[in-house]
Amino acid sequence: MGQGNRKKLALVIHSGTLDKLYSALTLSSTAVAMDIEAHLYFTFWGLSMLVKGGMEKASLPSTYAHLEDQMKKNLEKMKYPSPYEMLKRLKHSSLLKIYACSPSMRMFDVKEEDLIPEVDEIAGAAAFLEVASEASITLFI
Amino acid sequence: MGQGNRKKLALVIHSGTLDKLYSALTLSSTAVAMDIEAHLYFTFWGLSMLVKGGMEKASLPSTYAHLEDQMKKNLEKMKYPSPYEMLKRLKHSSLLKIYACSPSMRMFDVKEEDLIPEVDEIAGAAAFLEVASEASITLFI
Amino acid sequence: MGQGNRKKLALVIHSGTLDKLYSALTLSSTAVAMDIEAHLYFTFWGLSMLVKGGMEKASLPSTYAHLEDQMKKNLEKMKYPSPYEMLKRLKHSSLLKIYACSPSMRMFDVKEEDLIPEVDEIAGAAAFLEVASEASITLFI
Repeated sequence: MGQGNRKKLALVIHSGTLDKLYSALTLSSTAVAMDIEAHLYFTFWGLSMLVKGGMEKASLPSTYAHLEDQMKKNLEKMKYPSPYEMLKRLKHSSLLKIYACSPSMRMFDVKEEDLIPEVDEIAGAAAFLEVASEASITLFI
Repeated sequence: MGQGNRKKLALVIHSGTLDKLYSALTLSSTAVAMDIEAHLYFTFWGLSMLVKGGMEKASLPSTYAHLEDQMKKNLEKMKYPSPYEMLKRLKHSSLLKIYACSPSMRMFDVKEEDLIPEVDEIAGAAAFLEVASEASITLFI
Repeated sequence: MGQGNRKKLALVIHSGTLDKLYSALTLSSTAVAMDIEAHLYFTFWGLSMLVKGGMEKASLPSTYAHLEDQMKKNLEKMKYPSPYEMLKRLKHSSLLKIYACSPSMRMFDVKEEDLIPEVDEIAGAAAFLEVASEASITLFI
């Protein structure tokens, strides 16, 4: 981190469903493999993904619930890791940074000790905008 | 506005739910406090937020409806302003610009006189892309 | 394509509903008319839009289903083309590029022969990030 000349991907993860989580983590893994820093700011429903056990409980939006079994079977065949497994592998790199949105924590009564240890920083929107304004790719998921 | 060297945040607000509205306005308030211009282009369901009384009627997506009371109580404790209050405060700054999407207005039979007075411009996608192509941060909400 | 000095719009299309599809294609048409390259990466539910007949079946999210008739009547009055018609017109320009996400194809058992002929490339997230990191505007839809 902190190398000013490395490209950056900055994601706001507002959603709390399994499909969006997979998109966010696949983009992040790919970025890191390309030597791009990945900054993930979890807010609103996304914050629940950072609560212990949250990623394991994530499911598809109700409209697509009937596709969940097929998707999970195929992901297994593809040897695709689970979201939390992906996150833990990504943390082996120093290119991933995870932010938990502080106002969302107060809004939904989430305490610091409720969060998974992979969180790097509890921060407000300014921390995200600071990084995002230097990023090549910014997405709201 | 119009200072070419100031950083810009450009948001498409496509969604019409309270959570997305809070995310959009929190990012915008923070941006403005950091001397970053905020350009908000309201389209599709987001357009309904610019109709008089629209922000007051905004609610959470049905999946999360059971969390609305807890959220609102906590927001009150945090002295978080309502969305429309946030927007009006932001308008005191000259760094916020609100666009209403003209094709969306025709699509949903919204007339100019239906809109809140804080709207700066009724415009098509070209106006947004023009600004967004000069922005440091672009998000679709 | 390939002109390094032309501005770029890079969209991840994760959603599979008609409203999001219209937003993506309207932004793309406008971009192309402004001589901006448009790169559209269809993933997850968005992938279904690239399956033959997929765009024709797209509908509004259930919350807004009651507005679909009004919307479609107004779009007709506005002589707004259907999404697939928009895509085909855009393909006349050389500024549009359509990517189908390969892991999503495996996840949902979609074969190459199931896709519409307008798809330019079947690719993983790296192809998108490569283009997006050079783009002026990046959005996740």
